[in-house]
Amino acid sequence: MKVLVVGANGQIGRHFVKMLTKSKHHIPKAMIRKEEQVSFFNRLGVETVLSSLEDSIEEITVAMKGCDAAVFAAGSGGKTSADKTLLVDLDGAAKTIEAAERTGTKRFLMISAINADKRDMWKEDLAHYYVAKHHADNILRASGLVYTIVRPGLLTNEPATGKILAVTDLDSGEISREDVARVLLEALDNEHVFNKTFAVVSGDSDIKSALNQL
Amino acid sequence: MKVLVVGANGQIGRHFVKMLTKSKHHIPKAMIRKEEQVSFFNRLGVETVLSSLEDSIEEITVAMKGCDAAVFAAGSGGKTSADKTLLVDLDGAAKTIEAAERTGTKRFLMISAINADKRDMWKEDLAHYYVAKHHADNILRASGLVYTIVRPGLLTNEPATGKILAVTDLDSGEISREDVARVLLEALDNEHVFNKTFAVVSGDSDIKSALNQL
Repeated sequence: MKVLVVGANGQIGRHFVKMLTKSKHHIPKAMIRKEEQVSFFNRLGVETVLSSLEDSIEEITVAMKGCDAAVFAAGSGGKTSADKTLLVDLDGAAKTIEAAERTGTKRFLMISAINADKRDMWKEDLAHYYVAKHHADNILRASGLVYTIVRPGLLTNEPATGKILAVTDLDSGEISREDVARVLLEALDNEHVFNKTFAVVSGDSDIKSALNQL
Repeated sequence: MKVLVVGANGQIGRHFVKMLTKSKHHIPKAMIRKEEQVSFFNRLGVETVLSSLEDSIEEITVAMKGCDAAVFAAGSGGKTSADKTLLVDLDGAAKTIEAAERTGTKRFLMISAINADKRDMWKEDLAHYYVAKHHADNILRASGLVYTIVRPGLLTNEPATGKILAVTDLDSGEISREDVARVLLEALDNEHVFNKTFAVVSGDSDIKSALNQL
């Protein structure tokens, strides 16, 4: 599959793109915002497309043309101002989902956040971020796309272990960004996680067998 | 009908509650946030319930019990910080919609904003507000409720004229808050606007005939 990685220049995005370049079955296309981000991907021999999630659906649609899957790895994070959270994490996701519908890009993976479905777990200072993720996830589920919503726990920069716990309901835990990227890679064409939402933290299972049990 | 007015203490909300007290067919219940807002409604002889849109769905559900319709007249407006926009205009609306589903409150009126469906018309400094309204409207349309989404133009404090223009597609115009309240009152049980979304500005038609043509 040719995979559009939205937010390719983010930390998870970079890990994921690198893994795609080494995979036998997939080719990445990196959607990035800034010209100065191109060189990183050029060195990897990865095709790039300059497009912002604040652009129109039409522009995102052009960026997505020819792709078989889209992975939404973008995020303003919990640290940017709330207006960017609305425009990127919510509306940027909504526009990307609509672009996928328009281009017939059937497969769609979303990086969400643990507890995005549990309002009573939202810490006040991050509540706006969870609102955006919660509703972006709902929009994806209501779309006609073959979705997988991955909700990682607290993200760390530890090296990948390849060992995870993946369950539909979980309140807390940590996982390295590199392991999240591995989960995305496995999830891309693993039918066990088609149209599913699950939390993922570091654990004891191989990624493939963890996803097979969902 | 018994009508829960969410955001009853807002400018449109107060007009609307007053009109409901004078109507023959409806009784208002004012959902307000603060104890000090109670006296205004007490003087009108209007039942109040203290509940915030930042409360849980369960609490909003309790507030809505026994009502036949809900009108979402709350709004952080374009002037509050974007995190409140996310929590009130988007997630507060989403929770109110879910509370209506849970309580079987079938009829739901939403005050939206003109151009909430047109991203290319969103001014940059208000874009976060439009994102919230846009997605709240979509959530309502996807619900099983009998909705009406009213999208007023620029709001003024002029007295009501009772004369409007109501059309499904319109880019600009002004309307007084009191006229918006009158539109809500007419829309409540006017089947012509069931499951419809329209823009409304001041114009030349009587409210009833304007809505009948939608």
